[in-house]
Amino acid sequence: MNSRQQPKLSERVERLQPSAIREILAVIDRPGMISFAGGLPSADSFPDLSGMDLPREALQYGPSEGEPALRAQIAAELNAIGLRCTAEQVLVLSGSQQGIDLVAKLFIDPGTTVAVEEPTYLAALQVFRFFGARLAPLRPRQALAGLDAEAPPALAYAIPSFQNPTGHCYDAAERDALARACELLGVPLFEDDPYRDLAYDACERTPVCARLEHAPWIYQGSFSKTLAPGLRLGYLVASPDLMPLLVRLKQAADLHSNRVSQHVVLAQLRSPDRAERMRRVVDAYRRKRDFFAAALQRHFGDLARWQTPPGGLFFWLDLLAPIDTRALLPEAIERGVAFMPGELFFAGDVPAHGTMRLNFSHADEAGIERGLAVLAELVRSRIGHPVADMAEA
Amino acid sequence: MNSRQQPKLSERVERLQPSAIREILAVIDRPGMISFAGGLPSADSFPDLSGMDLPREALQYGPSEGEPALRAQIAAELNAIGLRCTAEQVLVLSGSQQGIDLVAKLFIDPGTTVAVEEPTYLAALQVFRFFGARLAPLRPRQALAGLDAEAPPALAYAIPSFQNPTGHCYDAAERDALARACELLGVPLFEDDPYRDLAYDACERTPVCARLEHAPWIYQGSFSKTLAPGLRLGYLVASPDLMPLLVRLKQAADLHSNRVSQHVVLAQLRSPDRAERMRRVVDAYRRKRDFFAAALQRHFGDLARWQTPPGGLFFWLDLLAPIDTRALLPEAIERGVAFMPGELFFAGDVPAHGTMRLNFSHADEAGIERGLAVLAELVRSRIGHPVADMAEA
Repeated sequence: MNSRQQPKLSERVERLQPSAIREILAVIDRPGMISFAGGLPSADSFPDLSGMDLPREALQYGPSEGEPALRAQIAAELNAIGLRCTAEQVLVLSGSQQGIDLVAKLFIDPGTTVAVEEPTYLAALQVFRFFGARLAPLRPRQALAGLDAEAPPALAYAIPSFQNPTGHCYDAAERDALARACELLGVPLFEDDPYRDLAYDACERTPVCARLEHAPWIYQGSFSKTLAPGLRLGYLVASPDLMPLLVRLKQAADLHSNRVSQHVVLAQLRSPDRAERMRRVVDAYRRKRDFFAAALQRHFGDLARWQTPPGGLFFWLDLLAPIDTRALLPEAIERGVAFMPGELFFAGDVPAHGTMRLNFSHADEAGIERGLAVLAELVRSRIGHPVADMAEA
Repeated sequence: MNSRQQPKLSERVERLQPSAIREILAVIDRPGMISFAGGLPSADSFPDLSGMDLPREALQYGPSEGEPALRAQIAAELNAIGLRCTAEQVLVLSGSQQGIDLVAKLFIDPGTTVAVEEPTYLAALQVFRFFGARLAPLRPRQALAGLDAEAPPALAYAIPSFQNPTGHCYDAAERDALARACELLGVPLFEDDPYRDLAYDACERTPVCARLEHAPWIYQGSFSKTLAPGLRLGYLVASPDLMPLLVRLKQAADLHSNRVSQHVVLAQLRSPDRAERMRRVVDAYRRKRDFFAAALQRHFGDLARWQTPPGGLFFWLDLLAPIDTRALLPEAIERGVAFMPGELFFAGDVPAHGTMRLNFSHADEAGIERGLAVLAELVRSRIGHPVADMAEA
């Protein structure tokens, strides 16, 4: 082996943490793995794309903003749910993770304050940290959303509908409170809304951005949960002041989004079967959620508390004992079960919190039953040990 | 209209220039536009993807690194051209523009020195500048490639085969000189190689990275030029020390690359028709290049000098008069012809250089004839004016 010379890397690379998501995406394909880890849609929900017809122009370079017809379709659908915008405000993304990268580039220097829910989407935390953000808590149930009025953050990031990881859906009062805080303090709002169409119970889902008159905003959505993640397609829509900058950032990141996927997604959005297909998907997920809730009751009834989520893809478990669930993960994977330790979703230094995020959409019923039995057994075995032992694990 | 509150943006956004590429991608779809601007492959070169069969797993989330079978295929092909690597060193990208973004994140802080050829790919310049790089000249024909041995750059970026924009292909001595400089000074080499398979005349094409023993390196390639840009798929391969960081950066940028495209590309790479298809593509481009050279002689014979490129997609024109060709562009587009002003490809402050980059692969023969006639007429009309007038244009 050669000894490689040591390169001088950027300072931000020191803040580049190993990604739990990446580790988990790497193991979920193992045969027999029961995954409660990723936000993986059920393969049964995917549209049938066999024999798909591709126009030749989809193979050429295209505009950075995205296909005009797809942008128009997205704008029309957003207006229908109360978010006023034009097609010119829509930017098609290579998945909504890309939106997080672009918005971080737009707002974050080392030391910039970003307000985030506690807990929140861990890959957003990673990107914000990577660009050097100082993370502050966003608390929509407090006055001014818990934001520091003296030194307001440069950006507030929120997932108001079926929050990741908690599954919580902001009610109208919480949506109003967050919007009012952003307006009063002039804080740009970055609203991430990948789960909105996966609603199993009635709840308020009008975007918080629709309530903003003066604060700059970015709203983003995804086709990963309603169509297929492998297409890697999402979009953002932003207040007109931010759009020219976001388009340039998109062009610098990857020129433009995949045109084949844009073509497929537009055809699916326009398909006459779309409403019926979504109804079937939502019904199937609702049944899955209810089955998961019952299985949780059987296995975790004496070990944890949880709320049945009104939408989205996750249960959030509060264990009665404050076990560091990160220490459980290797053993769980060893036994063929993947999950997300709750600690990863918190911004600050985290003591043992005793929380877990469990996806209910991917595994089948037998897998859910077996997987939860394994996890409950692991938790039970840990509770037998004193906390001091666990800290060393 | 509402008055939007002024957000506090990141410092790097001040370095975010409007992109000439983006502007041009936005106009090339206009009916009747003759484009010499982008590096657009001919639509005739695209494979037939109609009735394509898609495996269901291509719709689910996948690994950040890319599909294992595609990574193995890429590694095997790179070993065959002399670049020793394993499949584990291959990272599939959402187009090779993404590689530039990831490598910039890895190396560049404000003030970091990056050595680049003069001229070089303008979207690489934009990304390097955006992250705050100080750009220094890379001159493979000079001792130590023109690099400052006292304060070597943190990264050297080069396009040795059919360089963009000049079309130059480094000979063996230039490749050796660049490799030696990187080894002696410990400078990581970022070799961008999207055009290597578009070779019309015999020339040395072994990657410069294959000559490195100790310096860290990143080599990247693209499927945009040999298959189809709309698939947005490229790859990088890196020395083992850099891979874990690049994979994390990829995951943070967009989780993973489009699986549908990865499936399509792998099928094309394994197709029994592949060699024959590439031979047809290269033959067609060679004929196009030769037609373009003859048309240039007719229209620009008394206006410019150029080398016929041995590969790639571009002619690089040195006008005999030092016209600022940026000032010609709006009028050219007005008259239905797009091209790239040469000034955009230079790192420093640029006086009127009198250079143009002309793509020969996209327009048909009638378009080439008509487009070059329009451009020559515009150049001729400018030469009539004194230089002082032009500076004001």
